[in-house]
Amino acid sequence: MAVSAFSYILSCPVRFSSPGSNHDPHNKQKLNNMKYVGNSTKPAKAVDLLSQTAGVASTYVASVSDQKLYMNKLQIRQNIPTKKQFVDPYRQGLIIEGGFGYRQTVVIRSYEVGADKTATLESLFNLFQESALNHVWMSGLLSNGFGATHGMVKNNLIWVVSRMQVQVDHYPVWGEVVEIDTWVGASGKNGMRRDWLIRSQATGHIFARATSTWVMMNERTRRLSKMPEEVRDEISPWFIEKQAIKEDFPEKIKKLDNKAKYVNFDLKPKRSDLDMNHHVNNVKYVRWMLETIPDQVLEAHQLSGIILEYRRECSSSDIVQSLCEPEEDGILKNGMKQDSSLTHLNEFSFPSEIMEGGGLIGSFEKEPVRYTHLLQIKGETVNEEIVRGKTTWRKKLTSVPFSS
Amino acid sequence: MAVSAFSYILSCPVRFSSPGSNHDPHNKQKLNNMKYVGNSTKPAKAVDLLSQTAGVASTYVASVSDQKLYMNKLQIRQNIPTKKQFVDPYRQGLIIEGGFGYRQTVVIRSYEVGADKTATLESLFNLFQESALNHVWMSGLLSNGFGATHGMVKNNLIWVVSRMQVQVDHYPVWGEVVEIDTWVGASGKNGMRRDWLIRSQATGHIFARATSTWVMMNERTRRLSKMPEEVRDEISPWFIEKQAIKEDFPEKIKKLDNKAKYVNFDLKPKRSDLDMNHHVNNVKYVRWMLETIPDQVLEAHQLSGIILEYRRECSSSDIVQSLCEPEEDGILKNGMKQDSSLTHLNEFSFPSEIMEGGGLIGSFEKEPVRYTHLLQIKGETVNEEIVRGKTTWRKKLTSVPFSS
Repeated sequence: MAVSAFSYILSCPVRFSSPGSNHDPHNKQKLNNMKYVGNSTKPAKAVDLLSQTAGVASTYVASVSDQKLYMNKLQIRQNIPTKKQFVDPYRQGLIIEGGFGYRQTVVIRSYEVGADKTATLESLFNLFQESALNHVWMSGLLSNGFGATHGMVKNNLIWVVSRMQVQVDHYPVWGEVVEIDTWVGASGKNGMRRDWLIRSQATGHIFARATSTWVMMNERTRRLSKMPEEVRDEISPWFIEKQAIKEDFPEKIKKLDNKAKYVNFDLKPKRSDLDMNHHVNNVKYVRWMLETIPDQVLEAHQLSGIILEYRRECSSSDIVQSLCEPEEDGILKNGMKQDSSLTHLNEFSFPSEIMEGGGLIGSFEKEPVRYTHLLQIKGETVNEEIVRGKTTWRKKLTSVPFSS
Repeated sequence: MAVSAFSYILSCPVRFSSPGSNHDPHNKQKLNNMKYVGNSTKPAKAVDLLSQTAGVASTYVASVSDQKLYMNKLQIRQNIPTKKQFVDPYRQGLIIEGGFGYRQTVVIRSYEVGADKTATLESLFNLFQESALNHVWMSGLLSNGFGATHGMVKNNLIWVVSRMQVQVDHYPVWGEVVEIDTWVGASGKNGMRRDWLIRSQATGHIFARATSTWVMMNERTRRLSKMPEEVRDEISPWFIEKQAIKEDFPEKIKKLDNKAKYVNFDLKPKRSDLDMNHHVNNVKYVRWMLETIPDQVLEAHQLSGIILEYRRECSSSDIVQSLCEPEEDGILKNGMKQDSSLTHLNEFSFPSEIMEGGGLIGSFEKEPVRYTHLLQIKGETVNEEIVRGKTTWRKKLTSVPFSS
């Protein structure tokens, strides 16, 4: 029952190490063969970052007791509960689903919408992250990390996201009150699923659905880890069977190469793109992906779905390339080939769309446009995958031109 | 009692036209001489943007009645009150200061903080904008625009910001509950001042102060306007004398040229940088300014103050340059020259700093570093000023390295 920053990554298939077995040479060998390691210098680099942080801090902090004092004060200011809460008046959150789901009521803010006054996809990702962390906050399990439980911190474990899928039927508008529900479930033996629903507070109409899968990584060795019993005992009581998006056969995303139709080379993470984990935030990934799509497409279309498969983390010194390829043989041409997520979208949203009226926002037409995406780190000899993506788009009823 | 997007601009000194006098040739002549016009093609361009929007929309929208239906539904979803409200449970806002100020309680969200877990300056700007708009929302004066009153919309007027000053004594941390107070006052005959205070909800300790000045612009002609009586009658009852930052002699910011020490050429606004007014948002300006300062300075220092003087608006097709010059003869060297805003900072923050403990966040040392900034639009023959800025920095107790 926890969530990490969306900034971490890993690949599938995944093999797990046992917690505490980091110095077992046999285990190490296995882990070094894992795809996500990419190149052997990267985990060491991540460790360097941590020690460097401590090193720099020591030049400014007068004493260890000062540092402790600061940490104590930070904890008081953050006011993280040590026991399960049922209502959070400040965040307008409450525990639902028989005691284990979380619902937060939020008003879409002026800076969360784009030029068309509807919430941006980035804002929805931000709200997913926020509600997930607040869910852990309510549980009393939140430790000092970015969604890690007490048991995880004890074992030096952090959450890493491996996959995320979002379907948006309606984008909420500026000033609209929405409810965000989130809950967790089992995902295989060592993983966790986290789902979300965003709905209109006024009508109950569902605007968006999302699902994600998470595993644990040792913060120091940067290796994936099995879920320790201690952690399983903390989080498994929170598992709920319900799924926001049913996927019998999760779609595989093909890997693009440099022959992709649209490419943005030379993307450089900036200071402001880093989150609390000191890694490029997931929301920045989404922005890099979408910015590669031509403006004419973005002006006339609205994203209805996105799938992200995370492969490895990206740090501030990396140079990133965003590749994008339109799907030529999609529904656009033959009118018959429709993937399961779209069928699902139709089933659940179209009738209520008509009932509610979507105007600018809704109006699903049977002409989705699809793109395959890849973000990669430019390497000296080979490039390394950060995340593969697939986006689905529908036509807007009205459009806002980008350039004047 | 209203606020605009922070994306508009103008220069001082300012002369005003009377509302409705746009076709008076004498008046036009005067306005064309105004500094803020910059070059004569720009206002026309802005008008083009508006007509272009309407043109594109008509190709997608089946009929005018569809458009009206959409607008009606948008209004229902936004639920903007037509009468004054005293409490807003969803936004956690209430009317204070004898009936005319506004207070909103917010929790600092996970995506509003940087790598050091404290709110970013951009997040504070976002919260200023949000609370200002919610203040207008509560007043019952909010029309369909970005903070414009009914009387302003009737006269085709929008708000433009001319100056903004922010002082940050403490940055709130992730999960901290803060109260944002905002109110308005008179600024000369045709302007309005808007102020803000951000304080700890738990202790009442003031974290940040801000003040801004606003005038009105005709949305179609892009010319500044006198405040119509109708609008004065709407907003002047909300004016409060109190000032968040007292400035007897507002500091002038010198204009930099291309010989500035640090320069970022070739900054291009992106789709996601535009706000509801289809112009580059103020927050993006701040980011462009700060990104020009070297990483080593940003790692070891924390912004304590910023002053912005807005000159003209920036659209998506402009190419922007960010210039930055360190102040050589500041306090850093002679230890004596201390500007009024810093004195003020000391008076109000230092005692409570000691009482509260700031640790990583606070600890004002008498070694501020100051920078002068300029954002300009690259022109074929001359560059045009967007905004001048001045930033003041203090040393951090601990530091977070940017590059690993």
